Amino acid sequence: MSKVRVAGFSLSLDGFSAGPDQSLTEPLGRRGAELFQWFFPTRSFHAMSGQEGGLINIDDRFAGSSMEGFGAFIIGRNMFGPSRGPWPDDGWKGWWGESPPFHAPTFVLTHHQRPPLVMEGGTVFHFVTGGIHEALRVARESAGDKDIKIGGGASVVRQYLQAGLVDSLHLAFSPTVLGRGEAPLAGIDLRSIGFSLANHTGTENAMHIVLEKAQQNISDAL
Amino acid sequence: MSKVRVAGFSLSLDGFSAGPDQSLTEPLGRRGAELFQWFFPTRSFHAMSGQEGGLINIDDRFAGSSMEGFGAFIIGRNMFGPSRGPWPDDGWKGWWGESPPFHAPTFVLTHHQRPPLVMEGGTVFHFVTGGIHEALRVARESAGDKDIKIGGGASVVRQYLQAGLVDSLHLAFSPTVLGRGEAPLAGIDLRSIGFSLANHTGTENAMHIVLEKAQQNISDAL
Repeated sequence: MSKVRVAGFSLSLDGFSAGPDQSLTEPLGRRGAELFQWFFPTRSFHAMSGQEGGLINIDDRFAGSSMEGFGAFIIGRNMFGPSRGPWPDDGWKGWWGESPPFHAPTFVLTHHQRPPLVMEGGTVFHFVTGGIHEALRVARESAGDKDIKIGGGASVVRQYLQAGLVDSLHLAFSPTVLGRGEAPLAGIDLRSIGFSLANHTGTENAMHIVLEKAQQNISDAL
Repeated sequence: MSKVRVAGFSLSLDGFSAGPDQSLTEPLGRRGAELFQWFFPTRSFHAMSGQEGGLINIDDRFAGSSMEGFGAFIIGRNMFGPSRGPWPDDGWKGWWGESPPFHAPTFVLTHHQRPPLVMEGGTVFHFVTGGIHEALRVARESAGDKDIKIGGGASVVRQYLQAGLVDSLHLAFSPTVLGRGEAPLAGIDLRSIGFSLANHTGTENAMHIVLEKAQQNISDAL
């Protein structure tokens, strides 16, 4: 059955998924790019961003599985673009150019209606104003048997976790501290909402952990 | 010059240095032992605890340097033992047997006076009732040119960090999440109090990071 997954979600060791002072030139906030040192050098990221080469290593395996095989994506508006409020007529089509790396229906949570945007390579941006449950419902319809990825940012991941709607969580902890920023997991007790550790892999550039939501009775015994 | 260091300090990826529900049988709290899977198998820990063998690897290097060469230690009373309030006449001499692994003067923060305890192997427990600054003053007198280790637990590390008294911080993040417990760094912005990343090393069982307090002008530039 289709799972709802967070995958390739990068955090600093002090729990931030983006640095402070986000801006157009630093969409990940101050030092936010340090969170992706495990990801940027990989062949998967190179391929996603139209570059040759890249490393084929454990990080690459996680990078690949964090983007491939999903039947639908759900992202927050702030991840889609820098504008806020009613959509301006600025031609913005996301950060990713004409062929975004989603290659599947991608549902953008927003308070403001907008017609779908059909991109190259299979990505269609749908703008959902009905909230996280509604977005998941339509994502499920699109995804069929494939998994659904909750792509971010921090606030969207937090909302889906708190609502108990996430089945699987791959977190990549990067060897940095940001001090301040967006802390999607702050105050969330992942154990009590049913997650247990499925596996971990340490590399030079990240500690990868995969948490799965077990059936309640199994989870209690772990 | 003598530095004040936190070293070999283990944390879960959700920021806990001990699990919930601490007890005599689980002094590290529920799942707290998971924090030390990088430490327990090492030759350094084996030697500390009077066992033969043990792994000689990167984790062992960090384990060794987290206990060796210090001129004095400062620890909290709850790390010294399970009793609270006025000292009971129970013969308790710490968790570590007749020859504790400190091999140096070890200052125990407490609200209740007690004469020093001379142990085997160079450890002398001194009980300090004058607070963290007083403990650091007497530890400096004892340590000479050697470094002083703030040994824990969570509350003591937190107090020394918040007071700006720590120069160097080696944190070992273990691949687990505890959900609840003691969170010594919660709300502390390590960047703004002057720390920057000196180095990091990822192993299968921990992401080790060393943070150093730079001079203010250097720190700003990093």
